[in-house]
Amino acid sequence: MRILILGGDGYLGWATAMYFSNRGHEVHCLDNYLRRRAVREEGSDSLTPILESLPARADAWRATSGHEIAVSEGDLCDWTEFDRIVREFQPEAIVHYGEMPSAPYSMKSREHAVFTQYNNVIGTLNVLWAMRDLVPDAHLVKLGTMGEYGTPNIDLEEGFIEIHHKGRSDSLPFPKMPGSLYHASKVHDSTNIHLACRVWDVRATDLNQGVVYGIQTDEARMDERLLTRFDYDEVFGTSLNRFCLQAVIGHPLTVYGRGGQTRGYLNIVDTLQCVELAVLNPPDRGEYRVFNQFTEQFSLVELADLVRRAGEDYGLQVEVNHVDNPRVEQEDHYYNATHTKLLDLGLKPHHLSETLIESMFGIIERYRDRIVPDVILPRTRWTPRGRARAAT
Amino acid sequence: MRILILGGDGYLGWATAMYFSNRGHEVHCLDNYLRRRAVREEGSDSLTPILESLPARADAWRATSGHEIAVSEGDLCDWTEFDRIVREFQPEAIVHYGEMPSAPYSMKSREHAVFTQYNNVIGTLNVLWAMRDLVPDAHLVKLGTMGEYGTPNIDLEEGFIEIHHKGRSDSLPFPKMPGSLYHASKVHDSTNIHLACRVWDVRATDLNQGVVYGIQTDEARMDERLLTRFDYDEVFGTSLNRFCLQAVIGHPLTVYGRGGQTRGYLNIVDTLQCVELAVLNPPDRGEYRVFNQFTEQFSLVELADLVRRAGEDYGLQVEVNHVDNPRVEQEDHYYNATHTKLLDLGLKPHHLSETLIESMFGIIERYRDRIVPDVILPRTRWTPRGRARAAT
Repeated sequence: MRILILGGDGYLGWATAMYFSNRGHEVHCLDNYLRRRAVREEGSDSLTPILESLPARADAWRATSGHEIAVSEGDLCDWTEFDRIVREFQPEAIVHYGEMPSAPYSMKSREHAVFTQYNNVIGTLNVLWAMRDLVPDAHLVKLGTMGEYGTPNIDLEEGFIEIHHKGRSDSLPFPKMPGSLYHASKVHDSTNIHLACRVWDVRATDLNQGVVYGIQTDEARMDERLLTRFDYDEVFGTSLNRFCLQAVIGHPLTVYGRGGQTRGYLNIVDTLQCVELAVLNPPDRGEYRVFNQFTEQFSLVELADLVRRAGEDYGLQVEVNHVDNPRVEQEDHYYNATHTKLLDLGLKPHHLSETLIESMFGIIERYRDRIVPDVILPRTRWTPRGRARAAT
Repeated sequence: MRILILGGDGYLGWATAMYFSNRGHEVHCLDNYLRRRAVREEGSDSLTPILESLPARADAWRATSGHEIAVSEGDLCDWTEFDRIVREFQPEAIVHYGEMPSAPYSMKSREHAVFTQYNNVIGTLNVLWAMRDLVPDAHLVKLGTMGEYGTPNIDLEEGFIEIHHKGRSDSLPFPKMPGSLYHASKVHDSTNIHLACRVWDVRATDLNQGVVYGIQTDEARMDERLLTRFDYDEVFGTSLNRFCLQAVIGHPLTVYGRGGQTRGYLNIVDTLQCVELAVLNPPDRGEYRVFNQFTEQFSLVELADLVRRAGEDYGLQVEVNHVDNPRVEQEDHYYNATHTKLLDLGLKPHHLSETLIESMFGIIERYRDRIVPDVILPRTRWTPRGRARAAT
């Protein structure tokens, strides 16, 4: 199948590109190196040393696997370039990771907020118009986030909820309460994609993904040059990845606030499985399908405890610190999210284990000289300095 | 009160500016003449002859009423300019009409869609950041639209709905199913504003307005130079205003499709009342309040019939034509929208009557030489040519 991967240089994008290429699909990656630039602006860098460009990565992949990955260095928001790629490549599936992915980044300043929403909303509009006019039969597989839902006091369903109200009922989009302007940008995308399906007969799968952890995939194990990036800084790192790195360098694990914040999590290898299941099982024309893409729920306190125990078995001294929460969010809340649709398609979850955490310790140790400890502690606050705000 | 009116040169913005100024408030209007330019690009113009600029309108207002309206010719998306205005004027209320308001415009092409969402989302983000950092106690009164909800099979509530689900319950944002990329941009705004209230303690009222009709307001009656604009073209005109104009010039009333499309409607004088009620009764800091702003529901067929009857009493020959629906929308559907919050604050509705329609006929006749009939029939289709799509 011809698969266009937007954001193909990123943490998940590059791993996905190799995964599909390795299974005989024709893969084309587009990326403008936004993630590389933004991480450098934070004074940080990927823990793993990644090759200097997408063409270099594709060369290493060819040399190692014998498979081709086509690459374009360009911006999805640049219509002239994107239009040309879609016309030439004629993708059957478009896997869309090509967005600014950071909640703290979007809350830093007006400029960061505007850039995040501009980049994500306009990029996705470009994808939808390309599908409308150039590849109407293609299937959009869009990476959304579980964070679109927020933490309401009811079970989270997969995109839609049956509402009974005043004697009538309908199945309607699940209400959204995103917790940052980044998460809001993903809600905007979902609204636009759903509309495109209803009006233009686009077919789309919106993968509301949990927090991804892990470094290794089968393809990356073939050669060190194929490793995907791994971020741990306060802006682009995610909780479990950061906890593992903190354990290795003897930094206290930074639990934000009381740590009752509960989210869905999944292993990067399960992200690849899920995206493949979505691509190989497309919806009908006009159908907008939402899958909740995670395998397990944890609170921050539970995750920190798991990392502490694994660390002690591994011979590390691990301390857990509760730091002032830089975000405005509920720290104790109900959370129970449905996630059966990908299991029904055949997902075989890799659950989080001490063994997996210890294998992450191993890789992190290999690159510990590259770690910049200064970028770990949270500096980006959701509210202006001097104004505290209780989450409600 | 110091009231900043964004989009103060538009159909409702200018009428609102005079209304508040006439009641002793200190009014500052910002507008970049987007609406004037976009209507001219359609080959159309306001039915009513409006003065050439905001400063000219403010001069005429001063000469007529003795009141001042301060004006700025600038773009809300230009932060440097907007930041300066907010710092200098220190508004206590910001009435935000400053958006691209047309559903057909947003569906014309990729460029139109991108412009609509960029302009509306980024403009509103600028407002929210200005409130966060410059006027944290100000009250945002934002014009949304009833079209954010779409036409689900349950009663529409005012912004939030109590959902009972699997033994738990919560009051959550009402699910949104916008019918165009313009309506979607308003949904994006609502999501961003709600977030700003939760995180930054902004206070906001989101007025989900129905379709406005009418030309005259008390202030405009003082002098012909004070009339607000009135659009009737397929892109910027709205149904009842267009039907009245069609009746006057002997053009068949253009009902799109079967005409069962039902919406909420209100008189322009009630828009002014509603906005005033919102401004004078602000919510608490951190509160996001949604009012459904309309006074009556009608289907297109009902409206056309009303205009036909009024026309015949007035001595006009009125024909009703069902034309191919250029939009993708349900043409027969359930529609029952709650609208009690503004009534509770004291709204005294002016219901639609033959008398009102006949007074519109009178004004339209006065300017009938200015009418460009070519711009009335729908040309902007929701789907690419050759692809029909049934609404679901």
